[in-house]
Amino acid sequence: MNRIKVGLVQQSAVRDLAENMSRLSVGIDDCVERGAQMVVLQELHNSLYFCQTEDPMNFDLAETVPGPSTKYFGAIARRHGIVLVVSLFEKRAVGLYHNTAVVLDSDGEIAGKYRKMHIPDDPAYYEKFYFTPGDLGFRPVSTSVGRLGVLVCWDQWYSEAARLMALAGAEMLIYPTAIGWESSDTEDERRRQNESWKIVQRAHAVNNGLPVISVNRVGREDDPSGRTNGISFWGGSFIAGPQGEIIAEASSVSEENLVAEIDLGRSEEVRRWWPFLRDRRVDSYEGLLRRFID
Amino acid sequence: MNRIKVGLVQQSAVRDLAENMSRLSVGIDDCVERGAQMVVLQELHNSLYFCQTEDPMNFDLAETVPGPSTKYFGAIARRHGIVLVVSLFEKRAVGLYHNTAVVLDSDGEIAGKYRKMHIPDDPAYYEKFYFTPGDLGFRPVSTSVGRLGVLVCWDQWYSEAARLMALAGAEMLIYPTAIGWESSDTEDERRRQNESWKIVQRAHAVNNGLPVISVNRVGREDDPSGRTNGISFWGGSFIAGPQGEIIAEASSVSEENLVAEIDLGRSEEVRRWWPFLRDRRVDSYEGLLRRFID
Repeated sequence: MNRIKVGLVQQSAVRDLAENMSRLSVGIDDCVERGAQMVVLQELHNSLYFCQTEDPMNFDLAETVPGPSTKYFGAIARRHGIVLVVSLFEKRAVGLYHNTAVVLDSDGEIAGKYRKMHIPDDPAYYEKFYFTPGDLGFRPVSTSVGRLGVLVCWDQWYSEAARLMALAGAEMLIYPTAIGWESSDTEDERRRQNESWKIVQRAHAVNNGLPVISVNRVGREDDPSGRTNGISFWGGSFIAGPQGEIIAEASSVSEENLVAEIDLGRSEEVRRWWPFLRDRRVDSYEGLLRRFID
Repeated sequence: MNRIKVGLVQQSAVRDLAENMSRLSVGIDDCVERGAQMVVLQELHNSLYFCQTEDPMNFDLAETVPGPSTKYFGAIARRHGIVLVVSLFEKRAVGLYHNTAVVLDSDGEIAGKYRKMHIPDDPAYYEKFYFTPGDLGFRPVSTSVGRLGVLVCWDQWYSEAARLMALAGAEMLIYPTAIGWESSDTEDERRRQNESWKIVQRAHAVNNGLPVISVNRVGREDDPSGRTNGISFWGGSFIAGPQGEIIAEASSVSEENLVAEIDLGRSEEVRRWWPFLRDRRVDSYEGLLRRFID
């Protein structure tokens, strides 16, 4: 299979989990009606972005994998015969939690999972409180539509993660994410941040000759602590080809289901023209394993 | 020193070396008059881009380092009291050549050099015939305006090279380069290539919180073999800030001396907001030292 129709559901979340899940299901249905063979959901799509504060009660949102959500979304994947990439708050053990993407294959079974490796922590994104850094490494998940290099949000700033997925045979990179602006950011600063978010991910496509699918949350969510004015998630989910070219892009302010075709055959053409993998200086990259070279 | 005025000279080369060198000198003078404390020249600026064919006679263009060009440009650097980054065809020994960037400090002395580590080879860019891959690794050069992470052309597609320079303390990344289109490329293909070239380098700025200075050749050069219609170098030299934002950009069709200010203090602000270096998973990057993970 060379050409694949890819769908993504960019949503604004509400407090009620069941309502989010039900609306995600409607979004998936819409993508499938438009031909999607794979659908990707945004990061932690079942709930509000709870990491705006450090609140131990929020661990109640976590669930096992497999668990209720893999059952719910697995049934949807099976019913439609599609691959579905979901993003869950995984309860691995009492007191041990991960930010985990799960890939459900077209038979509804779990094809594989990825535990977010790079965990951010900055004001309004207190993820180090909630998520233990992943311990599964950077391994693509084999599915009926290809080998998926699934990474999550903060990972998108790390060229190492994208490269490792490509070296391990990923045929596309997939980023469920939840990123937005603080209300105190100036217009200029917002534009720079949004643009840098896009170019780093498009550059992963270029560096590795792979399509990239990035699915972001959209809309405003309050800060429960009242200390900040909350986050305005900037949407702008996109699908890029293996030269980093934008194939389709969603709204920056409203919910949208995006469907576009990617051509995996194009990756081979691009990699033949610009054979970056051929010339890596693996004899001289040891420093990449160091924190800093001082 | 936090704010630095940076200049670059984007030129079309001719066959006569002395004429190129003389015109480069005029370009440097112009940058200095406009306040530049550092000037960067494009890749292999003394000659035509001779790698369009594999011709053993072209090794006559190579010279030692130190040698005539470091003397010529060293005198210019000393006269103006500026840092000058030049790009030379280095003759290291009989039968051993490199594509080497040399940094001349404001006293005219050689502050350090970098031998291009990643060597391309594709139709019209037969560099593997001419240049032995560098063996100096990725080490910034300390100068009176800061620690310069000098890389060359094909290196620009490798996030590993940019990261290693940043980890070794580079305060900015500098790419002398010579890239263009083949006449058979479609308009769409040209746009994709040009855009991908820009975003990968801007992404190095984002990933590493560093300014990037990229200096490209401009104008058309014939293929001496007559097998192709030559290369149209696309110019578009640019200076980007540590969020990948374009600060200044040169013409895509004509010669231009570009001068702009970069603020090294801004890098620290940016790295505090988005502390990517903090969260690298150095425990899980071993695969980066492998050719492919199969």
